[in-house]
Amino acid sequence: MSKAAIILAAGLGTRMRSRLPKALHPIAGRPMLQHILAAAAEVFDRAVIVVGPDMPELERAAAPHPVVVQTERLGTGHAALQAASLLEDFEGDVAVLYADNPLITPDTLHRLAAARGGAGLALVAMRPADPGHYGRVLTNAAGEVERVVEWADASQEERAVGLCNAGVICAPAAELFGWLRAVRNDNAKGEFYLTDVVALARQAGRRVVAVEAPEAELRGINSRVELAAAEATAQARLRERAMTGGATLIQPESVNFAFDTQLGQDVTIGPNVVFGPGVVVEDGVEIRAFSHLEGCVVRAGAVIGPFARLRPGTVIERHAHVGNFVELKAAVLGEGAKANHLSYLGDAMIGAGANIGAGTITCNYDGVNKHRTEIGAGAFIGSDTALVAPVRVGARALVAAGSVITEDVADDAMAIARGRQANKPGRGFRGKGVKA
Amino acid sequence: MSKAAIILAAGLGTRMRSRLPKALHPIAGRPMLQHILAAAAEVFDRAVIVVGPDMPELERAAAPHPVVVQTERLGTGHAALQAASLLEDFEGDVAVLYADNPLITPDTLHRLAAARGGAGLALVAMRPADPGHYGRVLTNAAGEVERVVEWADASQEERAVGLCNAGVICAPAAELFGWLRAVRNDNAKGEFYLTDVVALARQAGRRVVAVEAPEAELRGINSRVELAAAEATAQARLRERAMTGGATLIQPESVNFAFDTQLGQDVTIGPNVVFGPGVVVEDGVEIRAFSHLEGCVVRAGAVIGPFARLRPGTVIERHAHVGNFVELKAAVLGEGAKANHLSYLGDAMIGAGANIGAGTITCNYDGVNKHRTEIGAGAFIGSDTALVAPVRVGARALVAAGSVITEDVADDAMAIARGRQANKPGRGFRGKGVKA
Amino acid sequence: MSKAAIILAAGLGTRMRSRLPKALHPIAGRPMLQHILAAAAEVFDRAVIVVGPDMPELERAAAPHPVVVQTERLGTGHAALQAASLLEDFEGDVAVLYADNPLITPDTLHRLAAARGGAGLALVAMRPADPGHYGRVLTNAAGEVERVVEWADASQEERAVGLCNAGVICAPAAELFGWLRAVRNDNAKGEFYLTDVVALARQAGRRVVAVEAPEAELRGINSRVELAAAEATAQARLRERAMTGGATLIQPESVNFAFDTQLGQDVTIGPNVVFGPGVVVEDGVEIRAFSHLEGCVVRAGAVIGPFARLRPGTVIERHAHVGNFVELKAAVLGEGAKANHLSYLGDAMIGAGANIGAGTITCNYDGVNKHRTEIGAGAFIGSDTALVAPVRVGARALVAAGSVITEDVADDAMAIARGRQANKPGRGFRGKGVKA
Repeated sequence: MSKAAIILAAGLGTRMRSRLPKALHPIAGRPMLQHILAAAAEVFDRAVIVVGPDMPELERAAAPHPVVVQTERLGTGHAALQAASLLEDFEGDVAVLYADNPLITPDTLHRLAAARGGAGLALVAMRPADPGHYGRVLTNAAGEVERVVEWADASQEERAVGLCNAGVICAPAAELFGWLRAVRNDNAKGEFYLTDVVALARQAGRRVVAVEAPEAELRGINSRVELAAAEATAQARLRERAMTGGATLIQPESVNFAFDTQLGQDVTIGPNVVFGPGVVVEDGVEIRAFSHLEGCVVRAGAVIGPFARLRPGTVIERHAHVGNFVELKAAVLGEGAKANHLSYLGDAMIGAGANIGAGTITCNYDGVNKHRTEIGAGAFIGSDTALVAPVRVGARALVAAGSVITEDVADDAMAIARGRQANKPGRGFRGKGVKA
Repeated sequence: MSKAAIILAAGLGTRMRSRLPKALHPIAGRPMLQHILAAAAEVFDRAVIVVGPDMPELERAAAPHPVVVQTERLGTGHAALQAASLLEDFEGDVAVLYADNPLITPDTLHRLAAARGGAGLALVAMRPADPGHYGRVLTNAAGEVERVVEWADASQEERAVGLCNAGVICAPAAELFGWLRAVRNDNAKGEFYLTDVVALARQAGRRVVAVEAPEAELRGINSRVELAAAEATAQARLRERAMTGGATLIQPESVNFAFDTQLGQDVTIGPNVVFGPGVVVEDGVEIRAFSHLEGCVVRAGAVIGPFARLRPGTVIERHAHVGNFVELKAAVLGEGAKANHLSYLGDAMIGAGANIGAGTITCNYDGVNKHRTEIGAGAFIGSDTALVAPVRVGARALVAAGSVITEDVADDAMAIARGRQANKPGRGFRGKGVKA
Repeated sequence: MSKAAIILAAGLGTRMRSRLPKALHPIAGRPMLQHILAAAAEVFDRAVIVVGPDMPELERAAAPHPVVVQTERLGTGHAALQAASLLEDFEGDVAVLYADNPLITPDTLHRLAAARGGAGLALVAMRPADPGHYGRVLTNAAGEVERVVEWADASQEERAVGLCNAGVICAPAAELFGWLRAVRNDNAKGEFYLTDVVALARQAGRRVVAVEAPEAELRGINSRVELAAAEATAQARLRERAMTGGATLIQPESVNFAFDTQLGQDVTIGPNVVFGPGVVVEDGVEIRAFSHLEGCVVRAGAVIGPFARLRPGTVIERHAHVGNFVELKAAVLGEGAKANHLSYLGDAMIGAGANIGAGTITCNYDGVNKHRTEIGAGAFIGSDTALVAPVRVGARALVAAGSVITEDVADDAMAIARGRQANKPGRGFRGKGVKA
């Protein structure tokens, strides 16, 4: 049976104190909205995103999924109801999820959808360490949900129940929208609460069941403190996945992964390494402390860092070395090549086995356009060299240290471009100021 | 009514194993003594610091506050009594605080002073997770303090009391010094204990009240392990304040703030960022991983790092970019200007929209004095350029890559200062040593 | 009495998902095997390592200790028995230890050996927070061990016992090997369990005693997650030792030590500092954030970092300064000398009081060999200078900024080697592309 998800993303997130809509704040390098969409896509065939008025960035981020606008913020039930125009005739189940609850796992969503199959409505529940003011989920002897009672309305006995409502539900589309229309706003805040559909389902004689999931994946995000806590949860998952997959993290809590970081086996990652999105690291790579990688591929056996920065478009070929204070951008460092110290290699193609001396800089930008530098296999670039692109240094060519290379160098040729040295006896440094 | 604080700072801190007086060890970039003085200044009109003999650095650090020297270390009561020469005739309340208890909050001090108003003596108490050997605060049915019993003298029943004495008290000056003079040293260590004034106040028929405060702000610092714990408490406060104020900290526990770091709204701070004192960051700034800032201003919309270092006297204007392995010192980077790679910019004024190429170095030091570099708006400094100060590059000027600029360059002019390239066919790199 | 240790290191460590034998995975910069060998060497006179078949790296790492190969993996008892060929006639006690249990302390081993002296067999026990499926150690009223019961065979009452078997034992050689031969494999897995010697010792009428040790030093390492946990335990010990010894760690959990890091008193270590093996830091040194040190000596009063990298063979003399984005390798930086910005100093000897300008690079590699650079005392190396080794710059010599120095410079001489500047009016940067 077909399944759809409504993603509620209209929240203003006032406590975030941000101009950015809450649903676009990132976790592990990806906006919350994309996290929930990715999890939903594992289980649901379609998704409809409910946004608030005047949230053009959010609408753009939601594409290609359809968006409905909740023009007035009248509560979660009202928000979900906005999707009726797109989903009322949908023949299948509809779940209601939250953009600010982005760490819910596909496993939990699978279980939710499966549980719905055996009941009229399924909801996700949790047992928080501190149940606080969460609504309590009251079950009967058979383990089915009798009702959800808000904390304010709960008796002492009911408050002692540890099972809490996470707010995520799933029901057949037709019934769900029927119930949503029946929800009333005769409460203190005058809002239409999604939770009320549970009581309506029970009144309709439908069975309601709860699937339990860990609190960590169900905590809402309403402030930057909670955002940081969610980031920590996401990172803990990614770190454990990396280690279980065969990577050594010397100090796991100091490594920051992106949601999509791919690591091979016998990869070693030193303390304090940061991954932006789009990084693929093959087997046997060593990434030393204080390295920063984003949008790049590091092939088997390469050694990176410490203090290396790989920017998008970079490929480090097998057994190549990138050392300290070296930046690569849109550059290929060939197999076994080395760039070990204080260099900037941008828009460059560096051949296998080439040696890039300390302080080498590709002058790739002319103020308007970027130009390419090519360095042939086995070339030796002396230290402190500037390569003014577009320029090509041939295979096995030699560039003398301290040169500024503006013209191509042929294969097997040597190039030198520096001033001659003059020594002036007796004019050394005597602790007075010099124009030096 | 006027209020004064006595700050006890005479402790040798033997367990610190340091030549530096304990009260001068820093937390969040500021000596403990300054922390307690800053908190005291929110509530008290004056402060007197009690130091030990031979602590000239501490006396200097205490300025402009008056200092009294406790020549013999005969206990906390004796230490507080040294302030009598300055405060005995003081018409108001006097509190006794500790330099090695620097995280006590102004809020707690306010409550202490207010509580004194309704009683003869007020003290600060806490409920530690592990009450251990702290003195216990025994209260009567009305919640008033009956007495403080030292752990060694306490019965089993008394030891079961969770309320512990933090040692901080407040009383009217005349009475306080009277009680301090009455304190006896007939105990195992032969010391005069400040705590004994509680019993003397009770004997004098005065009411004694306790204000409770969290253990975290009352833990004493006697070792570097405890110093690190206090640093962690201070950092946790600063991180929470930053997030609550509207900054995203991707990995909060990896960010190190100074006591005075100011952050605007929608600032994003990546993992592993360190702030020294005196940093102001405006709205919408992004500070990427592995950045180190001290004594600088970063204006709205600027992007810093990763691997950037901003040293004192630096101003990054709106929407300017500072990239990796770039150091600025006493430099202004104009609006929208960029210095993205491997550069040192010291004692420099860089105009709006200028582009500073990779590997640019201001040669600002001649061995004796520092000299200034000026770069005009819209100038383009080619990569791997040395600018030998004092020197001025005009607006919209162009400096060719690899140049060593020793003379001024006029507005709209181009300057080039590098060797000519010579290519030598067949003299490339063949795996033998070369003088390159 | 003489004492020997059998180190079991044959484990495949399948859950590590590694090509490297488990016993060679490092903790605090040293393979597990070396950790247990170092701890054993404090108490035991000899060690025999039991390895599996086809583990040549492990055999090499075990040298000079003798190795025996367990050709079939038939259980811990069988593994220990392999050492019989070397130790059966040994006159003294033999302990069985584990390479994947590398954090056991010399203190625990001392207590184990001492306890054996008063009994027929001694074992190490612990009280884990979660005893889980560990075997339980059952003691009699006198506190002696009656037996060890495997979790699977234990009654509810026995499972409630908190004292667990850590698997480490010590007994006289002759008896131990006798018992090992008597161990049977009539159990579910068909393995010979070392634990069974406890029952055999009891059957032989021998007293068995347990010494307790903290769980943290007894946890086995079977996965990279457990490896990271052991690393955390090792680091916590090293950090506490550093602080107790008189070093300030501003953010201790962000500092990564090697097993052998030596720190003097009043050393301050900023956040995010990484130590590889072989570092000695003397009194009063300040190591700022984001520094990376390995195989180097930093003498009293020196200041390192932030963003400094000291590689093996480096000596930083008293009161010298190494600043940001500076790398030293096999280099001596003389007393009071400074290298504060963006430099690479390799295979270099730098005299006292020399000033190394920003962007200085020693061109020490010619593609085949490394060559040395010497810089005399009091020399001033202008910024952005390349020193093409082998080369010598004399005492008090002055090198002009932007020079490429290929020839020696005499004491007190000045050297300059750069292009002349040409200014071209009106040819500045106008937002069109330039070859610059």
